[in-house]
Amino acid sequence: MTWESIAATKRQVLRDSIPAEWLIPAAILPSTDQLDVTNFPQESGFFTEHELEITSSPAPTILSHISSESWTSEMVTKAFCKTAAVAQQLVTLQLETQKEKTCLTGTQTNCLSEIFFDRAISQAKELDAYFQKTGKTKGPLHGLPISLKDNINVIGYDSSIGFTSLVNKPAINNSTIVDILLEAGAVIYCKTNVPTAMMISETVNNLFGRTVNPLSRNLTTGGSSGGEAALIAFGGSRIGVGSDIGGSLRMPAACTGIFTIRPSSGRFPNCLSRACLEGQETVNGVIGPLAKSLDEIVLWARVIVDQEPWIRDPRCLPIPWRCVETKERLKIGVLWNDGFVTPTPPVARALKETIQKLEAAGHEIITWASTEHMEMLVLLGGIFLADGGRSVRKLLEPTGEPFRPEMKPYEEANEKSVYDLWQMHVNRNNLCKSYLDRWNENGIDTILCPTTPYSSVENGKFAYAGYTCVFNLLDYPAVSFPCGINSDKAVDTPYVNHQALSDLDAQIQNDC
Amino acid sequence: MTWESIAATKRQVLRDSIPAEWLIPAAILPSTDQLDVTNFPQESGFFTEHELEITSSPAPTILSHISSESWTSEMVTKAFCKTAAVAQQLVTLQLETQKEKTCLTGTQTNCLSEIFFDRAISQAKELDAYFQKTGKTKGPLHGLPISLKDNINVIGYDSSIGFTSLVNKPAINNSTIVDILLEAGAVIYCKTNVPTAMMISETVNNLFGRTVNPLSRNLTTGGSSGGEAALIAFGGSRIGVGSDIGGSLRMPAACTGIFTIRPSSGRFPNCLSRACLEGQETVNGVIGPLAKSLDEIVLWARVIVDQEPWIRDPRCLPIPWRCVETKERLKIGVLWNDGFVTPTPPVARALKETIQKLEAAGHEIITWASTEHMEMLVLLGGIFLADGGRSVRKLLEPTGEPFRPEMKPYEEANEKSVYDLWQMHVNRNNLCKSYLDRWNENGIDTILCPTTPYSSVENGKFAYAGYTCVFNLLDYPAVSFPCGINSDKAVDTPYVNHQALSDLDAQIQNDC
Repeated sequence: MTWESIAATKRQVLRDSIPAEWLIPAAILPSTDQLDVTNFPQESGFFTEHELEITSSPAPTILSHISSESWTSEMVTKAFCKTAAVAQQLVTLQLETQKEKTCLTGTQTNCLSEIFFDRAISQAKELDAYFQKTGKTKGPLHGLPISLKDNINVIGYDSSIGFTSLVNKPAINNSTIVDILLEAGAVIYCKTNVPTAMMISETVNNLFGRTVNPLSRNLTTGGSSGGEAALIAFGGSRIGVGSDIGGSLRMPAACTGIFTIRPSSGRFPNCLSRACLEGQETVNGVIGPLAKSLDEIVLWARVIVDQEPWIRDPRCLPIPWRCVETKERLKIGVLWNDGFVTPTPPVARALKETIQKLEAAGHEIITWASTEHMEMLVLLGGIFLADGGRSVRKLLEPTGEPFRPEMKPYEEANEKSVYDLWQMHVNRNNLCKSYLDRWNENGIDTILCPTTPYSSVENGKFAYAGYTCVFNLLDYPAVSFPCGINSDKAVDTPYVNHQALSDLDAQIQNDC
Repeated sequence: MTWESIAATKRQVLRDSIPAEWLIPAAILPSTDQLDVTNFPQESGFFTEHELEITSSPAPTILSHISSESWTSEMVTKAFCKTAAVAQQLVTLQLETQKEKTCLTGTQTNCLSEIFFDRAISQAKELDAYFQKTGKTKGPLHGLPISLKDNINVIGYDSSIGFTSLVNKPAINNSTIVDILLEAGAVIYCKTNVPTAMMISETVNNLFGRTVNPLSRNLTTGGSSGGEAALIAFGGSRIGVGSDIGGSLRMPAACTGIFTIRPSSGRFPNCLSRACLEGQETVNGVIGPLAKSLDEIVLWARVIVDQEPWIRDPRCLPIPWRCVETKERLKIGVLWNDGFVTPTPPVARALKETIQKLEAAGHEIITWASTEHMEMLVLLGGIFLADGGRSVRKLLEPTGEPFRPEMKPYEEANEKSVYDLWQMHVNRNNLCKSYLDRWNENGIDTILCPTTPYSSVENGKFAYAGYTCVFNLLDYPAVSFPCGINSDKAVDTPYVNHQALSDLDAQIQNDC
């Protein structure tokens, strides 16, 4: 089979796994020029009031409805499965119509990569039966559906991470996070799309195609946890598990206006998941939650930590959940720009208005310099390409699948020697020490900076991950949050006589 | 200058840094065939009663004497400097007489690599003055001399780690651990010898020569923290700082009958120290204390953790000191042998008698299998040699210094590619997961195993680090402790009709 036929078959299987009653009737499909489809559930009449109530409730509310027996896990699970199925179709249709030019031929699909609604509904019924029989919940997430990024292994399902060569190679064990979620009573029902190797800042691959932004289908949902972010922003999931090695949780969260935390490595269990560049540990990939509210992020994080993941994941750290007392007056370092790419007008405005609010609330604001950022970015590029793209090539070759254009650096990279990699480690350690020293000298409590230079950007134009990836190199925990300020064309006009910091800066300002 | 002349000059400088009044008069020198020199301080008449009282007191006693003003830091520091100076001479003399054949020409020196007694005495006087003036101690280690392994940087002194090319290149900053110790009030007075690159299981290099075991000068003190272990076993230090990447804290502790802990990485600050293979992070080097008692190990560890080293070392973990409640009945997995090298008769007996005591005390004992050990050993060999010995060669070449015979694997290694190293990481992670799963399945609380197959062994014959290095790969904390059982030729006779597990096993049994 060619890689194209493998992809086409896989997409067909995915389409066929949506139950007929959840296929959107042609009569109520939004027109292809309707960019924002997030109101479809509320406005289409395709959902019952009860379904809408469920999917618009925050996870803690859902959990308390289930544990008070006013809702069952089955009805909750069905509501989210249906909404996820609809999210999947809406984005697909838009792309099929636009016939967006990529190296893909044929139909493109979108935010989901694996659908197992049947399994989910069975699991929900079992949980309901257990609850009815024992009067006890199975755990702190009893009955709550949680979506999973494609690299999270679930026994019996592919973790293809955008490669046709990984299709029909179902996982033989669960990721540790899946076991923990199941033990906590969560229901798993789908996995979500990622870019090839999870190493592109948008969500596009040769297998499933592109995931677009449900808030504006001509814009990117970001990557690599873009399938998750799109699904959550649409309402097809309350809490999803994503991963991050250069911004893969934060960029999609920022593009879709939701919350996430990239933890330091060792905080949440990343054991037995599929890695993008297996064995690359100079910058460690981590997993983390995405959600529409901070409460849901905290709920998930606390449940995971309370399950003591370090007992089964050798790389997890034995640090119990801690309630941190925040100071009344924080000293906040603001990175207005990183010296290489200027935040675009809406982002710059959002940062400025947020700082004004923080100052008004009594916090101390200082300017945080990007001293080490440029050197860190150069180093990061070298790290991800250090195997000369061999890890990626090994996954493309079995089916003759081509490198996507976004992956050109991997196609062209030269492999480094171990000695050279070790020098990169020395370099990284020096930069981390310098950054920490500067943090201490300035006595700051936190850094505030844009997640990306964009609010979002047209599909195919996301060109810079520099504001997120430096914190992967530093291994600092980083939260991306919506600040309540939306892009407004009337106000956020392009810079006049912009002094570009770099050619890339000029291009990015031009693209927005 | 040739490497030989650099080495000779450095050794002369070291000898000249011993004050004349601390040079041992020829009349009281132990004869060269006296193997155990640890009684020299007590029996030679070269020390005052007060000096002996000081150096034989555990660190907590010393600290309380200083804080109750019965002793000054100056008198304590002088007592340890003098004892260290004597330790240095005794071992030297023995070696000069034996004219041990190594690739070195000229005189050999021993447990010390840097001597800064003047600095120490000044520092002690300052601490005393501070205490007299304020009535307060500077910190929890106020006035206590602490010795440092050669790789720990102290501004103004070399960290040559056995290479002539690193002589006369004084450190421009302190290791983080040094800053922390100084802030805690500790006095630093000397650095101690290591093998070349700290990658030999004995303590021998082309610069300072060999450190021997003060308990029996024909035996090795182990490596790579062998200078520390010899100094402490002799009585020239109460607490020393060493490091460990494959057993470098534990093997010397075992050879000299003292205590140590190899922590998991990130527990104690290893920032700004000189690494053996800079940037090698597949197995992380760690620092840890060596001492004659467990109380002193705990004292040091607690002081370091209480100083919150994670604030200045980016790789330290924010885990406060925790008082662990031990169960009344532990389930202990005993690794009787690792399937490759049989513990020699005294070690096997010590393990057996220790287990009998633990069983008598009500603990549950099970046999722990070495399932993953062989694969881990093969992997470890590959990791340390992955740069094809380039890191070592770069430190030998500037002065034309030859590879020592023990370093032959580094001389002959071929450099690996980054892709290959990444596969080693995958392999390591699988082994770590498998080991942890087995731990959980067996429900054990700890593993008890020999630190080395030897009690100790003749200089030049230490051939196996397999019992320690696997725990570096696993990154488990590991304590090495004397169990109160000494080698006894009458009892510990060679095995009869030994079924050797390997050629190396046969050789090791033959050598003992």
